[in-house]
Amino acid sequence: MDFSSFLTSLGTSFVIFLVLVLLFSWLSRKPGNAVVYYPNRILRGLDPNENGSGSRGLFGWIGEALSSTEEDVISSSGVDTAVYFVFLSTVLGILIISGLVLLPALLPVAVTDDRLHHLPTKIAQTKNYTVLDKLSMANVDDKSPRLWAFLLAVFVVSFVSYYLLWKAYNHVSALRANALLSPEVKPEQYAIIVRDIPPVPEGQTRKEQVDTYFKTIYPDTFYRSMVVTDNKEVDKLWQELEGDKKKLARAEAIYAESKRTGKPEGTRPTHKTGFLGLLGKKVDSIEFYSEKISELVPKLEAEQKSTLREKQLAAAVVFFTSRVAAASAAQSLHAQTVDKWTVIDAPEPCQLLWTNLKIKFFERQLRQYVVYVIVALTIFFYMIPIGLISAFTTLKNLKKLLPFLKSILDEDAVRTVLEAYLPQIALIVFLALLPKLLLFLSKTEGIPSQSHAVRAASGKYFYFSVLNVFIGVTIAGTLFSTFKELQKNPNSIISLLAGSIPENAPFFLTFVALKFFVGYGLELSRIVPLIIFHIKRKYLCKTEAEIKEAWLPGDLGYGTRVPGDLLVITIVLCYSVIAPLIIVFGVAYLGLGWLILRNQALKVYVPSYESYGRMWPHIFARILASLILYQLTMLGYIGGKKFYFAPFLIVLPILSLIFGFVSHKKFYRSFHDTALEVVAHESKEIPNLEQVFRSFIPPSLNSEKIDDDQFEDALSQVSRTGSFV
Amino acid sequence: MDFSSFLTSLGTSFVIFLVLVLLFSWLSRKPGNAVVYYPNRILRGLDPNENGSGSRGLFGWIGEALSSTEEDVISSSGVDTAVYFVFLSTVLGILIISGLVLLPALLPVAVTDDRLHHLPTKIAQTKNYTVLDKLSMANVDDKSPRLWAFLLAVFVVSFVSYYLLWKAYNHVSALRANALLSPEVKPEQYAIIVRDIPPVPEGQTRKEQVDTYFKTIYPDTFYRSMVVTDNKEVDKLWQELEGDKKKLARAEAIYAESKRTGKPEGTRPTHKTGFLGLLGKKVDSIEFYSEKISELVPKLEAEQKSTLREKQLAAAVVFFTSRVAAASAAQSLHAQTVDKWTVIDAPEPCQLLWTNLKIKFFERQLRQYVVYVIVALTIFFYMIPIGLISAFTTLKNLKKLLPFLKSILDEDAVRTVLEAYLPQIALIVFLALLPKLLLFLSKTEGIPSQSHAVRAASGKYFYFSVLNVFIGVTIAGTLFSTFKELQKNPNSIISLLAGSIPENAPFFLTFVALKFFVGYGLELSRIVPLIIFHIKRKYLCKTEAEIKEAWLPGDLGYGTRVPGDLLVITIVLCYSVIAPLIIVFGVAYLGLGWLILRNQALKVYVPSYESYGRMWPHIFARILASLILYQLTMLGYIGGKKFYFAPFLIVLPILSLIFGFVSHKKFYRSFHDTALEVVAHESKEIPNLEQVFRSFIPPSLNSEKIDDDQFEDALSQVSRTGSFV
Repeated sequence: MDFSSFLTSLGTSFVIFLVLVLLFSWLSRKPGNAVVYYPNRILRGLDPNENGSGSRGLFGWIGEALSSTEEDVISSSGVDTAVYFVFLSTVLGILIISGLVLLPALLPVAVTDDRLHHLPTKIAQTKNYTVLDKLSMANVDDKSPRLWAFLLAVFVVSFVSYYLLWKAYNHVSALRANALLSPEVKPEQYAIIVRDIPPVPEGQTRKEQVDTYFKTIYPDTFYRSMVVTDNKEVDKLWQELEGDKKKLARAEAIYAESKRTGKPEGTRPTHKTGFLGLLGKKVDSIEFYSEKISELVPKLEAEQKSTLREKQLAAAVVFFTSRVAAASAAQSLHAQTVDKWTVIDAPEPCQLLWTNLKIKFFERQLRQYVVYVIVALTIFFYMIPIGLISAFTTLKNLKKLLPFLKSILDEDAVRTVLEAYLPQIALIVFLALLPKLLLFLSKTEGIPSQSHAVRAASGKYFYFSVLNVFIGVTIAGTLFSTFKELQKNPNSIISLLAGSIPENAPFFLTFVALKFFVGYGLELSRIVPLIIFHIKRKYLCKTEAEIKEAWLPGDLGYGTRVPGDLLVITIVLCYSVIAPLIIVFGVAYLGLGWLILRNQALKVYVPSYESYGRMWPHIFARILASLILYQLTMLGYIGGKKFYFAPFLIVLPILSLIFGFVSHKKFYRSFHDTALEVVAHESKEIPNLEQVFRSFIPPSLNSEKIDDDQFEDALSQVSRTGSFV
Repeated sequence: MDFSSFLTSLGTSFVIFLVLVLLFSWLSRKPGNAVVYYPNRILRGLDPNENGSGSRGLFGWIGEALSSTEEDVISSSGVDTAVYFVFLSTVLGILIISGLVLLPALLPVAVTDDRLHHLPTKIAQTKNYTVLDKLSMANVDDKSPRLWAFLLAVFVVSFVSYYLLWKAYNHVSALRANALLSPEVKPEQYAIIVRDIPPVPEGQTRKEQVDTYFKTIYPDTFYRSMVVTDNKEVDKLWQELEGDKKKLARAEAIYAESKRTGKPEGTRPTHKTGFLGLLGKKVDSIEFYSEKISELVPKLEAEQKSTLREKQLAAAVVFFTSRVAAASAAQSLHAQTVDKWTVIDAPEPCQLLWTNLKIKFFERQLRQYVVYVIVALTIFFYMIPIGLISAFTTLKNLKKLLPFLKSILDEDAVRTVLEAYLPQIALIVFLALLPKLLLFLSKTEGIPSQSHAVRAASGKYFYFSVLNVFIGVTIAGTLFSTFKELQKNPNSIISLLAGSIPENAPFFLTFVALKFFVGYGLELSRIVPLIIFHIKRKYLCKTEAEIKEAWLPGDLGYGTRVPGDLLVITIVLCYSVIAPLIIVFGVAYLGLGWLILRNQALKVYVPSYESYGRMWPHIFARILASLILYQLTMLGYIGGKKFYFAPFLIVLPILSLIFGFVSHKKFYRSFHDTALEVVAHESKEIPNLEQVFRSFIPPSLNSEKIDDDQFEDALSQVSRTGSFV
């Protein structure tokens, strides 16, 4: 890629970004779009324009984002989102401080050397060196004492990282403690999840078994238990019923509208009962759904009762009368062997993965390892297509492989655009396919809560993207030219990797640029959700509930955002000393990201769960992994320059490991367990435990018809039948 | 070593053993020796001869040992000793079952082959093959299909081991649970140790700080706290006082005796106050010590007060009103960062290592790693002297190195004895020096209880002895002959090790034989303690207390016994298939050990602490490590025979790791933490918590003069002075 196509790519991206920002400023002022641009505020019952973003000019949102505090973020989007911003500002801080030291120090050192001029003319021509190369370490001679500057720069970046990461861990730990000690009643703080309950003893019900067990251990603080049931059937019925209720409401709305607009007696809506509403008998919709509902309601009630009675599983939610008791119980060993009566702290009721609760202890272990193997295989085999894409889409190779395209590809405009975007777009599309698969795999491990599954998937995605994208592209990009060399000496892969890094710098610069300009432009402008919302409202939505569903925003989705950001950070870190200019791009990416996501967190997204910052240790570990990868790369690269003092760099990975170990030791446990001193600040008034209990009843079992006594009765009638032993 | 010297060694050992056993039978019947042979029974207030061991003939003790139950062992020597017997019977079981399968199967297969006859005559002569070699794998041809039998034998031994180890882990887990759930009040079950207490806040005492903290978290179950103090000074004074009291009692006893035996007015004992009682002024002993005591008592009291007031450390013992509360508290995270308010379950008061309690969290971590490094270095550098000993003491080398000894060494009798014993004795003496060093190092890690330190030292000792003795001797024994080969190809160390194993078989057979015959003979006959006791009683002891001190037995010392046994087991396992005859020796060693130590556990030794079987996971892990070493050795050895199916053996180490992982997961945590269901069986009556509290007061602070109120007062006056912040 030559310098002009790099500038083209950068320029086009920036123009797209500007257009999208202007579009956002214009569209977000229209009151009709408020539900798309301010759903978070609307759901919290605030006036979308309270701060007058409409009146404050085009860029009022920037001021608002900048002036917002961490408390604002927590109150609008929760602790998890606040932690995401701690992550962004920490890495932004690392890059800004590093940049302030490195750019003035390294660029002059690099540009005043002249290795590239000394190279044999033939090589220089084929490689097509650009200004970018002159500003990088590629321009520094082997064994040059100038390499001292670059070596020291690695130390600077590392120590800045340690300092800021330590501060961040401290800060997040305090954030988590503050959130947990708030006197507000959170049901999950009074509950624990019990799994691997042994078979019910003769003559006891499952509920009696659980109650006896916990009453013996916690005579004073045990409140109540709820046996987990297999809700597959009842969930299906309940969803069918809810669907029919919505359809009935819709049909009634259509009928009411037809009265207003058409004949005063109205047109009763009809539909066909067959495939997709296209075939079969034509029926009156209102009658049809009313009938179906009145059929389903008793069926659901019967299923609810039989579920409670006959489908109990070997898991339970146990409630305590105080937060300390629950927190302490969740951390203690209950049974003499670990595979019985295992306890964990309860997640929020809404994010409990009920179906995973029945999986047995050793099955969970086994599943975990099987999933790890599958993920490892996926990482390995994804490398092949990505390598191919990267190799095919370099223009030279395209021309070689598809000679009939040669005439088109020689057109200047086509060539520039293709060269600028094709590989990056292929990469981005490819990466978008993966998160769903990884989330599915993580849930298969038997993880009991949504947030934990997202964390697990996110961690896998990070390793995937770093290994495949960064290392994969770097290797594959040079694989075609140096394949024979590799065959001769398979151990040379590390030096090969280090050697090919500078050549791939422009690719990654473009990748980062594309990602932040176009990605964040789309994010801010919300063009896609806006269009979808307007289409839905115009043609599909008939009831208020349907319209609300159409604009309801998702959550920030940090499960995929974090690995994406981490990939960029890994790339920027690894190039920070080799081609220091990349720091500027990294800062722009992260700064813009901070700004735009701050806006989205304050006004748009609504968190779907809260894990009180449990994501942080994962993020921390992965930033550190990036840092170690960077340190190793630099060791290889500076070593490859035949610099005798390169082995000094060996201390850095070791230091990083020690730093990680100490931080992990000091802070990690309070992210896994709840510190008792934190929850000991109980609120004065006794919480409504009944309500805490009810909040854990799954919606499909939570019928108004089944009152609490029946619930209890049904639960205690179980297993007299003896069918679950 | 030829066959005759092997038989000589075996024969001599056996004769020594027989003599010692007869000596034991004869000596143990004399009533005057009862305190040496039955101290455990005497201390428990039982009649030494209750079971009529005196009347039941020479070998009555064997019947008693065989008929004793596990409960007998627990009641006489505690759970830890019972666990030691579980260990012995498990490995005994492994060897017996393996022997029953392997001996009839492998010996015929080996002896009917004839590789040794086919070897070139020259090699055969220098190697000096014996009957032992003919019965071993050394006699099986390379690539022979007979190797299938040996390969399968490895699988048999492994699966027998898995089965019995699993059963043993289950059994020990139950033993531990039973001991912990007993309604008997054990002070340590009501207490936890708190370390890393943050600096005292302004205006509070240390005691108030601790009390407030725990009262907030455990408003209902917190009983009381005891701040740990720096007792160095007060301990010194207290020991001086106790010593003087003993000396006074002794002087008075001498005076009283002199009245009886000499002049009716008696001779007042005198001594000199200078160096060792040899120099200085002559004084009247009774007056001197009385005076000294009356000086020391107020000094001690003053020091006690000032210790309690001014020497408080950042650690405390916290007491709870129930066992569940204490067990749960010991497992829970209390502070948001792990390096503050760290808790562990309290060990027995007598085994608390008070001085280690003040060491800070990260200092403990650091110390641990520093100790690991030191131990690793020790292991490495001990190898050199041991290798030298092993090389020098083979007779051939001795003659080569010290030619002037040639005439003596050529004497048959001298040669046989030297060949038979010299290397083994050198090894045993060498190994005896180490445990003290390792125990010291383990205590330096900052471990807070004696039993834990013993466990840690014991584990280190195992790795030390396996690495140095087994691998070291095996390598060093062949190093002199094959040094050049090793220089050519340093990677050959594994094949070298495997190849040299059969050559060293006689060495280890003799080692095992010597260890069990002579070692257990001495153990049973207690010749050394008996002689020491009689000398002391005759010439030194004047008071009853002194006599009791002279016969008081130690504990079983399983900290050094277990690694010793494990070394034998490792050797026997590793040779079990190569030279199956060794199994007979292994069974004899373990069987004899079981019998003799059973006798000692029931009648002699008195446990000095109880850790409720916490030693077991360590033992288990090390048996498994031996098994894996065995499997790897066999892989190398059978592979070295150029047997194409040898790679099948690779599954075994993997299986062992999985087995270890599953067992560890399932059982380990209940050895680290106390399962709540176990301690939930509280006794009906409320324990005397005051007594529980007082049992944790160190003896040097536990003066009758300082009553409880003063203790409390003194504690609460602290740090108003502000000196500990």
